[in-house]
Amino acid sequence: MNHFIYHNPVKVYFGKDQLCHLGEELSKYGKRVLLTYGGGSIKKIGLYDKVVNEIKKSGLELYELSGIQPNPRIDSVRKGAQICKDMKIDVLLAVGGGSVLDATKYMAAGACVDFDPWDFFSKCAPIEKALPVITIPTLAATGSEMNDGGVISNPETKEKIGRSSPRLFPKVSFLDPTNTFTVNSYHTACGSVDIMSHIIEVYFTPEPDLYMLDTVMEGLMRTVIKYAPIALKEPDNYEARANLMWTSSWAINGFIDGGKQHEWSCHSMEHELSAIYDITHGLGLAILTPRWLEYCLDENTVGKYYQFGTNVFGIDPKIEPMTVARKSIDMLSEFFFDTLGLESTFSKIGIQEEDFSFMAKRACGGKIIKGFKPLGQKDIEEIFKMCL
Amino acid sequence: MNHFIYHNPVKVYFGKDQLCHLGEELSKYGKRVLLTYGGGSIKKIGLYDKVVNEIKKSGLELYELSGIQPNPRIDSVRKGAQICKDMKIDVLLAVGGGSVLDATKYMAAGACVDFDPWDFFSKCAPIEKALPVITIPTLAATGSEMNDGGVISNPETKEKIGRSSPRLFPKVSFLDPTNTFTVNSYHTACGSVDIMSHIIEVYFTPEPDLYMLDTVMEGLMRTVIKYAPIALKEPDNYEARANLMWTSSWAINGFIDGGKQHEWSCHSMEHELSAIYDITHGLGLAILTPRWLEYCLDENTVGKYYQFGTNVFGIDPKIEPMTVARKSIDMLSEFFFDTLGLESTFSKIGIQEEDFSFMAKRACGGKIIKGFKPLGQKDIEEIFKMCL
Repeated sequence: MNHFIYHNPVKVYFGKDQLCHLGEELSKYGKRVLLTYGGGSIKKIGLYDKVVNEIKKSGLELYELSGIQPNPRIDSVRKGAQICKDMKIDVLLAVGGGSVLDATKYMAAGACVDFDPWDFFSKCAPIEKALPVITIPTLAATGSEMNDGGVISNPETKEKIGRSSPRLFPKVSFLDPTNTFTVNSYHTACGSVDIMSHIIEVYFTPEPDLYMLDTVMEGLMRTVIKYAPIALKEPDNYEARANLMWTSSWAINGFIDGGKQHEWSCHSMEHELSAIYDITHGLGLAILTPRWLEYCLDENTVGKYYQFGTNVFGIDPKIEPMTVARKSIDMLSEFFFDTLGLESTFSKIGIQEEDFSFMAKRACGGKIIKGFKPLGQKDIEEIFKMCL
Repeated sequence: MNHFIYHNPVKVYFGKDQLCHLGEELSKYGKRVLLTYGGGSIKKIGLYDKVVNEIKKSGLELYELSGIQPNPRIDSVRKGAQICKDMKIDVLLAVGGGSVLDATKYMAAGACVDFDPWDFFSKCAPIEKALPVITIPTLAATGSEMNDGGVISNPETKEKIGRSSPRLFPKVSFLDPTNTFTVNSYHTACGSVDIMSHIIEVYFTPEPDLYMLDTVMEGLMRTVIKYAPIALKEPDNYEARANLMWTSSWAINGFIDGGKQHEWSCHSMEHELSAIYDITHGLGLAILTPRWLEYCLDENTVGKYYQFGTNVFGIDPKIEPMTVARKSIDMLSEFFFDTLGLESTFSKIGIQEEDFSFMAKRACGGKIIKGFKPLGQKDIEEIFKMCL
């Protein structure tokens, strides 16, 4: 129990007006900067101009790669890695949501190898080196700005695979909550679900936690529940955006795990949905998570739900545990589907039963996901059916 | 509000049987290791032998400096810095409580300068370089194993001064809760108070927190309140020791501050006590903290006490805030003096009123401590009197 290595070397500048440090941080790694971003929303909010201005002011050479899509594709990674090689890039600067950040991390790794970057995923090729990456996230969701992982899709093979390596930690991340002011309701909601899911998947595991980490996880979940609705109503509420942003980083940066050997149950299932249907990750998680919790609830697991219900949702601890457990799942569903306004079933978003068997098989890799309850293909199909 | 840089590069090995990585970590920094420790308790618990064995197995050269005292003296720092210079030490390995760790950090810095290491404190001489330090803490208290600070005493001038610098972060720390099994009741209690105080001094500040950090701080405090009594009753309870140990690191490693410009009120006052009377730091904090909280309580500050009382001590939130506030101070006092069994007044530990004026003047440096309430000399004298 509780053997682990904790090491998170990411330097974070948090708050407004910290971009004045961008040039100095980039310069530590060289002259030639590859700026990566998505569809151009960073231009609309003026962030692009600010970033370019800082880069030019510092006398750095700027290269660009835009058009990185949500559920980022291996093609973008290939393109970015090639630019790094061709242009002898020294440092990458990812500005955008988790997709841009994830793709950029793998460009940085791909730049240092001779093989196709998809091999990192399909063949688990070792990630032994990567160019330095600096990030400016514009969404509170994936936590990619402060961790060493990333998820990449391959539309050809309809696969979506996540991997991590200590080489992929960003060197520096600039977390400015005002950069998330223009995130629309839908993506604010999906991001909030993603944060909740990162915590829930660690919290609900059979291994006992360090109590202190349980208190931290419960606090982080209460934070999302408190501030996501405020951010929906008042998109430029700094306090709400700041709390969501910092919580998203700490939900998945290595701290809350505390040595627990957990696997990703809902994330593994969801990656199959978005690999095939290209839906927003957080939406898939919102639909899956309450059903997964329902599926795993029994006399052996009820204790953790009781703790969740009383400490996160404030359910009266005098109520009988199984009732608290069911109520906690209901309250989580209400939060996702009523408060955050997300669709609540597969039917509503066009995910069809005919794909369940295929997706379930791939979600567990034909084996067993050792999560809160071990999940094989049949279990996952069952959970998918509950989502219809 | 909430502008900050968060950067904590310390690599932590947490848990039993991690010492097998010691040789590999030391070797990254060179061949010549200076092992520092205190009065020899690490020999009694067998840790010394294990450490020396790992060092020798890795073919490293071992040098030693023992006898570092509680409230570590500048003399030890001078001696260690000189050994580093004379023996061309590559890396320091501090094994012991916070005193050993603090002293060793300043030896590492002192080894890189030509002036007297006391200048770091008396003249604020810049800390621009330091040899690498690896730590193995044997007490859950100061958090020195995961932060960039340290406090050193100068018996000649009767001063005790704390400073920090990013150069002083340990490279690696090995946190093995079993190394704290033999810590006696008194030092377990004092260490627990130190942890609580690190959190309380950040929690009770006029600047608003990020809510998410408040939830974290409340969780960490509940953890100490839950596990310190267990560690007192069952010194070899792994779960209790593990929770205290990891909480002590996170109570003062840069995370919970979240950009708050806070000063150390109780710590500044306490450093004067232990500078003159050489008492255990945690004991001084235990006596001071409830009185300081009492002194700062008024209509403007009551809100934070209400939050503290309800979220940390579980006081009924329906009770009127000022009553909750007073009850929370009472419950904290009960925790320190009844549950942990520490002495509750200055009189009982021989601290005399005749020194109050001198100590108060030095505690605030003849100025104002900008804490939860601004404290000048007269305020501090008043608080000291409340401790009699």
